[in-house]
Amino acid sequence: MKIGFIGLGNMGAPMALNLLKAGHAVKVFDLSAAAVQTLVDAGAQACGSPKTAASDVECVITMLPAAAHVRSVLSADDGVLAGIATGVPIIDSSTIDPASVKAFAELAARHGNSFIDAPVSGGTGGAAAGTLTFMVGGSASAFEQVKPVLAAMGKNIVHCGDSGTGQVAKICNNLVLGISMAGVAEAMSLGEALGIDPKVLGAIINTSTGRCWSSDTYNPMPGVIDTAPASRDYSGGFGTDLMLKDLGLATDAARSVRQPVYLGALAQQLYQTMSSNGAGRLDFSAVIKLYRCEGGTGSGGGAR
Amino acid sequence: MKIGFIGLGNMGAPMALNLLKAGHAVKVFDLSAAAVQTLVDAGAQACGSPKTAASDVECVITMLPAAAHVRSVLSADDGVLAGIATGVPIIDSSTIDPASVKAFAELAARHGNSFIDAPVSGGTGGAAAGTLTFMVGGSASAFEQVKPVLAAMGKNIVHCGDSGTGQVAKICNNLVLGISMAGVAEAMSLGEALGIDPKVLGAIINTSTGRCWSSDTYNPMPGVIDTAPASRDYSGGFGTDLMLKDLGLATDAARSVRQPVYLGALAQQLYQTMSSNGAGRLDFSAVIKLYRCEGGTGSGGGAR
Amino acid sequence: MKIGFIGLGNMGAPMALNLLKAGHAVKVFDLSAAAVQTLVDAGAQACGSPKTAASDVECVITMLPAAAHVRSVLSADDGVLAGIATGVPIIDSSTIDPASVKAFAELAARHGNSFIDAPVSGGTGGAAAGTLTFMVGGSASAFEQVKPVLAAMGKNIVHCGDSGTGQVAKICNNLVLGISMAGVAEAMSLGEALGIDPKVLGAIINTSTGRCWSSDTYNPMPGVIDTAPASRDYSGGFGTDLMLKDLGLATDAARSVRQPVYLGALAQQLYQTMSSNGAGRLDFSAVIKLYRCEGGTGSGGGAR
Amino acid sequence: MKIGFIGLGNMGAPMALNLLKAGHAVKVFDLSAAAVQTLVDAGAQACGSPKTAASDVECVITMLPAAAHVRSVLSADDGVLAGIATGVPIIDSSTIDPASVKAFAELAARHGNSFIDAPVSGGTGGAAAGTLTFMVGGSASAFEQVKPVLAAMGKNIVHCGDSGTGQVAKICNNLVLGISMAGVAEAMSLGEALGIDPKVLGAIINTSTGRCWSSDTYNPMPGVIDTAPASRDYSGGFGTDLMLKDLGLATDAARSVRQPVYLGALAQQLYQTMSSNGAGRLDFSAVIKLYRCEGGTGSGGGAR
Repeated sequence: MKIGFIGLGNMGAPMALNLLKAGHAVKVFDLSAAAVQTLVDAGAQACGSPKTAASDVECVITMLPAAAHVRSVLSADDGVLAGIATGVPIIDSSTIDPASVKAFAELAARHGNSFIDAPVSGGTGGAAAGTLTFMVGGSASAFEQVKPVLAAMGKNIVHCGDSGTGQVAKICNNLVLGISMAGVAEAMSLGEALGIDPKVLGAIINTSTGRCWSSDTYNPMPGVIDTAPASRDYSGGFGTDLMLKDLGLATDAARSVRQPVYLGALAQQLYQTMSSNGAGRLDFSAVIKLYRCEGGTGSGGGAR
Repeated sequence: MKIGFIGLGNMGAPMALNLLKAGHAVKVFDLSAAAVQTLVDAGAQACGSPKTAASDVECVITMLPAAAHVRSVLSADDGVLAGIATGVPIIDSSTIDPASVKAFAELAARHGNSFIDAPVSGGTGGAAAGTLTFMVGGSASAFEQVKPVLAAMGKNIVHCGDSGTGQVAKICNNLVLGISMAGVAEAMSLGEALGIDPKVLGAIINTSTGRCWSSDTYNPMPGVIDTAPASRDYSGGFGTDLMLKDLGLATDAARSVRQPVYLGALAQQLYQTMSSNGAGRLDFSAVIKLYRCEGGTGSGGGAR
Repeated sequence: MKIGFIGLGNMGAPMALNLLKAGHAVKVFDLSAAAVQTLVDAGAQACGSPKTAASDVECVITMLPAAAHVRSVLSADDGVLAGIATGVPIIDSSTIDPASVKAFAELAARHGNSFIDAPVSGGTGGAAAGTLTFMVGGSASAFEQVKPVLAAMGKNIVHCGDSGTGQVAKICNNLVLGISMAGVAEAMSLGEALGIDPKVLGAIINTSTGRCWSSDTYNPMPGVIDTAPASRDYSGGFGTDLMLKDLGLATDAARSVRQPVYLGALAQQLYQTMSSNGAGRLDFSAVIKLYRCEGGTGSGGGAR
Repeated sequence: MKIGFIGLGNMGAPMALNLLKAGHAVKVFDLSAAAVQTLVDAGAQACGSPKTAASDVECVITMLPAAAHVRSVLSADDGVLAGIATGVPIIDSSTIDPASVKAFAELAARHGNSFIDAPVSGGTGGAAAGTLTFMVGGSASAFEQVKPVLAAMGKNIVHCGDSGTGQVAKICNNLVLGISMAGVAEAMSLGEALGIDPKVLGAIINTSTGRCWSSDTYNPMPGVIDTAPASRDYSGGFGTDLMLKDLGLATDAARSVRQPVYLGALAQQLYQTMSSNGAGRLDFSAVIKLYRCEGGTGSGGGAR
């Protein structure tokens, strides 16, 4: 299959590589010449604009930082819609707000194209390994059409419902994630301050009603889970600034439908504090630093 | 073994029954004659005071609503310490604050007794089935001494560390639980308002990084998990007022060590709102009612 | 002076009328023909587009709901910048985000015009009476240039600093306002539930360290301040949805500079809850309804 | 008049001195011999116990850190009730919870004494100057009885209602205070980060709807109000730990009547964070340190 791929960042580049590995012909565009060269070295065809990348292909995939970039890539004079043939589906794997998805889908529909939201989870590790989860919003037929392409890059391809629901699923999952991580951070820090061994506390929570991914897989207290970012100084993982972006999408979406998100809004402030403290690139589980005293002595806590 | 059991409420009564079933001789005390009679019918010996129930036994177990009751049962003129023999352990399975545990342990030590905190999780169902988890605080030798007794009432008997750490474990677990449940309620309600099928959203969260007991076992949105209280009008389960009590213990303990618990304090207010709305006896997952609009139409949310 | 005025809503219409009363010649544009007719009846000249309204005048004033409208009014083909002469100042009295102000100011500067942010406080009453406060952002010379025009519509014309600081002042003031109103609502409701006469409590707070505009002028508890919206069923005043808009601007601006606003974010959720409950058009002091039990009996509180 | 005074701390000592200055005969008790000596030097009579201090007097005043101290001073074997004559009123100026007041009032009533809650505002400055505000809870006749005594120590003697309402008034006022101070801290920090001159912002808020004591008298941003603690490194004033204590009383009282206090609970965590950071003795306006970046450069905020 001939595929146009636009946006070769930390996520997009390994995703495009997996398309090549699966035998697809891939035309790529990115503002970074270095990023493009890496893909060209692997067999991709470099393009000078989104328009060119979208021309003469059977599918277009975009993986961009925010809705503003998607808008521009779609509708600029040298954008996707200027080059794409009628009927070719556009898959957007960026994480953006559901309202923008609807606007882009209408825009694409007027050009005779379907616009399918397909944000991912799984991080850069999943992107490299081809084990991403894709949360797909769009019609049943559009879903069936793009599923084989996504299968070259991911393990779970989930149809979430109509246009925009892929983004809704991602935003809502990450809303729970941001809250539960901060909640685990509070509980682990409180336990430490009250004198219980964090490993013991972690083990109890992980076999009880408090168990969650933030505790049993990504526990924010160093030493509790050996493979978690907390046990390697919060390097790697899912960055605080990315969590902050997703909580921003969640609270904005909530505002748009007048839906209160008390804990989500508060969690957002906690990660924002971390970011303003210069910790935006640490794994988001570093939010526990807001709770633990420096020495971690357990003798009384302390937020910073 | 001869065991004194004080406090025959919703939890204490089935626990004492399991001791009888295991072949222990059980002396019981409760202010409710009816509660005592049920145990007597099952083979227990009724006592007129905690003092009597604690006399001539090898172990005393208390299961009471709050620290004030434990204090009174221990130290009243006709209390446990007035009747108990030196060396006999006192197991308190009430959920109370860790500071009180320390005070009671010192009091007991002056009488030559160990006081072991052993709060439970598993609810009335676990109490009846004998599958409770006991979180035990006390010395290693005290733990070994009481473990066989607890094994007649529970499945997991976990040594958490020194005196008070049983309560710390329970409080910290329930802090995570109270936060994650409210977080799931926010996310499920937001998703509904944004138009995704709650069952689909639940399935995605439960296989992704947002997965937690509050979502995969006790999901607060009706219809997502058939066996959850949400699917039976929030009856049964873990009452909102009990969650409120535990979050009160958590925030109080946090205050005592100057440990911030931002999300915990906010979650406490949410359950307090539910309680003030008359929903204190509903399962705590009913907190989702604060977020969903009445009709649950998904057309824009609504907090009550 | 010849002035172009664009946006004749609840605020804009009385403002434009005051310009006419002060003897200015006013060219007006609004999408609502009825709104335009009212001004024409008072002596204004109707225009078919922002471009026409901005042509052949010495000053242009815009009063619009949000930044998107300002952008469109400025830069559409028939927009202000298409018609305005070089050197004529554009005063924007809309409440919008400071980042948009900067973008609009740069856009205007490229056309040889100054763009001055001048949001107001004082409400529709102040607009009618000509007693508004204008918070003005721009250079000292631009401020001196527009001050006489603003003086026809307001009583206090305050220079806040460079471009955008007028919006910053308004947003920050309303951030305090939204928080303090909800804080007073909590305290008055708590006092009522604990059995103190609200009038007595209000009087004490108003002569003590808790005193604030939200308590001594706009107290949310009915009967405490006779002239407050609370004493007329929360009609009139400053609508909940407007407060919600301004808290949205505040939390968005905070996000843009990574500045935590814990209480502001939580207050936003409270007003959002009110709005989702259908109370968006009530005065924002109606937020107390989230705290008081229906009967207001003081017998134990109740959030709704 | 002969008056017994128990509790000669930072507040109690200057209050007792003012009674002496007003010509009353004062019998004093405190655990600190140095504190007692200071009063003796000024003409007071030292007593060896609360019982002695309460004997042969026409009025007893207590000024103690917390309810536990009041309970002990009242009901110990050598406590007030062991020495006081029937009919002599007991005025408690400590800040404690309303529920304890009721318990103490019942206890005193059984001994034939009235127990009047009369917490103060005005700080150590007001105590020294004799300009305190007393918020008095008790019957109208009890209020008339004690008013002349209080007038020797304060300027405003306010009858709040029945027993306990003096504490309710104080707690509710300080709930507003704690919230509005943190709210002003958020707004001033946000304004600084967004580039407005803090003095200008303060001046605007103080003449607008955000005005409050926390902004116009005690503004937390250094340099805005010359006489505020912020302009002397947060020394003096009302300590963070005292605000934390009062917010603890407020949230506890709210819990007792199931009244939500969302912002109050969150503000409590903010001051708790300050206290855990070692800032418990700084004026509570130092809470702004959680929001401002170290350099206060206005270049992007920063929580600590």
